[in-house]
Amino acid sequence: MSAKRYKAHLSRRYMISASHRLHNDDLSELQNDTLYGKCNNPFGHGHNYMVEVTVSGPVNPESGMLCNLSDLDAFVRAEIGERFDHQNLNLLPQFAKLVPTTENLCIAIYEILKRGFNSAHLEKVRIEETMMNSFEYAGE
Amino acid sequence: MSAKRYKAHLSRRYMISASHRLHNDDLSELQNDTLYGKCNNPFGHGHNYMVEVTVSGPVNPESGMLCNLSDLDAFVRAEIGERFDHQNLNLLPQFAKLVPTTENLCIAIYEILKRGFNSAHLEKVRIEETMMNSFEYAGE
Amino acid sequence: MSAKRYKAHLSRRYMISASHRLHNDDLSELQNDTLYGKCNNPFGHGHNYMVEVTVSGPVNPESGMLCNLSDLDAFVRAEIGERFDHQNLNLLPQFAKLVPTTENLCIAIYEILKRGFNSAHLEKVRIEETMMNSFEYAGE
Amino acid sequence: MSAKRYKAHLSRRYMISASHRLHNDDLSELQNDTLYGKCNNPFGHGHNYMVEVTVSGPVNPESGMLCNLSDLDAFVRAEIGERFDHQNLNLLPQFAKLVPTTENLCIAIYEILKRGFNSAHLEKVRIEETMMNSFEYAGE
Amino acid sequence: MSAKRYKAHLSRRYMISASHRLHNDDLSELQNDTLYGKCNNPFGHGHNYMVEVTVSGPVNPESGMLCNLSDLDAFVRAEIGERFDHQNLNLLPQFAKLVPTTENLCIAIYEILKRGFNSAHLEKVRIEETMMNSFEYAGE
Amino acid sequence: MSAKRYKAHLSRRYMISASHRLHNDDLSELQNDTLYGKCNNPFGHGHNYMVEVTVSGPVNPESGMLCNLSDLDAFVRAEIGERFDHQNLNLLPQFAKLVPTTENLCIAIYEILKRGFNSAHLEKVRIEETMMNSFEYAGE
Repeated sequence: MSAKRYKAHLSRRYMISASHRLHNDDLSELQNDTLYGKCNNPFGHGHNYMVEVTVSGPVNPESGMLCNLSDLDAFVRAEIGERFDHQNLNLLPQFAKLVPTTENLCIAIYEILKRGFNSAHLEKVRIEETMMNSFEYAGE
Repeated sequence: MSAKRYKAHLSRRYMISASHRLHNDDLSELQNDTLYGKCNNPFGHGHNYMVEVTVSGPVNPESGMLCNLSDLDAFVRAEIGERFDHQNLNLLPQFAKLVPTTENLCIAIYEILKRGFNSAHLEKVRIEETMMNSFEYAGE
Repeated sequence: MSAKRYKAHLSRRYMISASHRLHNDDLSELQNDTLYGKCNNPFGHGHNYMVEVTVSGPVNPESGMLCNLSDLDAFVRAEIGERFDHQNLNLLPQFAKLVPTTENLCIAIYEILKRGFNSAHLEKVRIEETMMNSFEYAGE
Repeated sequence: MSAKRYKAHLSRRYMISASHRLHNDDLSELQNDTLYGKCNNPFGHGHNYMVEVTVSGPVNPESGMLCNLSDLDAFVRAEIGERFDHQNLNLLPQFAKLVPTTENLCIAIYEILKRGFNSAHLEKVRIEETMMNSFEYAGE
Repeated sequence: MSAKRYKAHLSRRYMISASHRLHNDDLSELQNDTLYGKCNNPFGHGHNYMVEVTVSGPVNPESGMLCNLSDLDAFVRAEIGERFDHQNLNLLPQFAKLVPTTENLCIAIYEILKRGFNSAHLEKVRIEETMMNSFEYAGE
Repeated sequence: MSAKRYKAHLSRRYMISASHRLHNDDLSELQNDTLYGKCNNPFGHGHNYMVEVTVSGPVNPESGMLCNLSDLDAFVRAEIGERFDHQNLNLLPQFAKLVPTTENLCIAIYEILKRGFNSAHLEKVRIEETMMNSFEYAGE
């Protein structure tokens, strides 16, 4: 096994607690209510989002690692945790013109990682909104 | 086993998504920040609360049940779900004068069940705020 | 992010409790026993099946959603839950000529969704039979 | 820590898959339907039961153990697994005159352990019927 | 609810990865092998231990908390994490004369917390060694 | 559904407890410390590895199965469990010249299955090192 470079995947989970309200200002009250139901209540509600980041790359024969977890952790802490954890998503610049659904949160986190994390290839971002629902975005 | 009545426990889980902000108006900004850290951010954040209700009682020899789950479900849906699910806890009457910590949410849910649910003896209410934290209240 | 349409995946979990017996009438008793072991006992046994449905599609820029969960829930409740939940699988028309293994249950559920659910593209159906086994079918 | 004997608890989980039908022959069809709902369907349904056995006792200063897990495993395999796993509970002698609810299964397993397992003190038996429901019996 | 003080419980989970070998120098090779089986292999093996600490106390009416999680986290990080995480338990002073079973690890962690953590009443320490086994110690 | 052959996937989980030390003899002490942090401590530490094996193939119309789980279990027990469970990975021949990271353990297990298990097509091996990290290898 020593000389070849094997391509593997690594997935790491991060927890974010945040609140949101699903509401689109361009729609009527009735349309918002029909579309989002109780997720449209004006005062918001919240979730523990489990964000799973998957990266891929060759396993380095010297270190036996595809990417140092401490690099990924440092990036996610600074760029994702600082932005989204313990926040009201509706008030963040990412969601100024975008409804903060978990689909859109997933895309927003993917794009931050895609632009800034270079130690391995980003494969996808998956978010569990509750233990019964999850969303995934893998780029275009 | 037919004639005796065996006392057993039943625990049932319910999911509630809600937002809250930990803040006490009687304290200074600095005190609030010291006490609650990022949970004090003015715009709130949220959780999926897993609420586990435990009741006890003799197993009815005829039905083999200690309490009909559909009775418990109906009570919790009407009295707990309607009040707390998809809400901003800070805006509810239960938390008008009380910081909506998970400790206090646990006590509030326990007291609603204690007063209104009579089909079995209420033992305790346990809430998992995240997969790493939980709180429990079993009455006085 | 406003104008583009991002393709995402949504997975949603549903619980079904059912019983089955693994047995093929065309095989001898010995062959059935060799093939299915204790799953062949004549009186059946049961499982909590966790059925995870994955659909994909563009995220609607207006709603921020790829598909309304309430549409998926309504379809699954009516077409999957009503048919399979709290049933003995061996007695259902789907398994009149088919052994009700979890592989075949997975295919049967996939085909019902494929024919009838049109609000998003069906990607796959995954069933956890126990916490140690799962099966997945993604069409031909 | 060497001379004292510390009393600790050990809990071990076992998986059982079985089917059952909730039905009491002494009640009318309507009464059975009212009481058990879809759990009364004549052809049964099934569950993966997670059976958690808790025992207690002093930690042996020489072995550092309160009870050898292999003794507990052997007893449970022979006395619980053989009787209940991959069975239709309604057809077992334990449930000849008893509705096979999870409450009654819990009591039946507790009593088998109480009578036959002597390597540690039996504290309780807890059964998760689904990830949302559990039952517990701790003796009289 | 404002004036009374409600006693609640808080449980918090911490992960520790460590290796150990179950072996007692006072016993013969055969006795060690009989007692510990494959856990006696001379080169050790390891676990992710999930350590759950439960404390209790009155809920402070001003803060709504029974104990600040950041105090508990700081204590556990300094006194438990530093000592046991990513270690070979057999080489630690706590286990110089004691077999590093999970029972004994549980007692050792309980005693460190009991002596040093004063912000709430220590109720118990529970350790999941694997998802099928757990141990608990609640003091004498 | 009777005549066609549907291709499905089956995933099965196995638990392995082992210890390892991340260390590369070709690097300096400082380089090892920088690269592996506390995973480099000289005495090792350990994990419960959850190894998930995914195979695929047509569902046999007669048996309704894609592969008999008992064949897969027997192979994994003999070839994977015997080699890796309750071992110190650093001392095994597989890791004589290779750092026993979870990436490399994943590749080693994949290659053993690929060479020796012929009852279905091997798709991938995924290992959860902790509940927050996992690694996956699907061949070249």
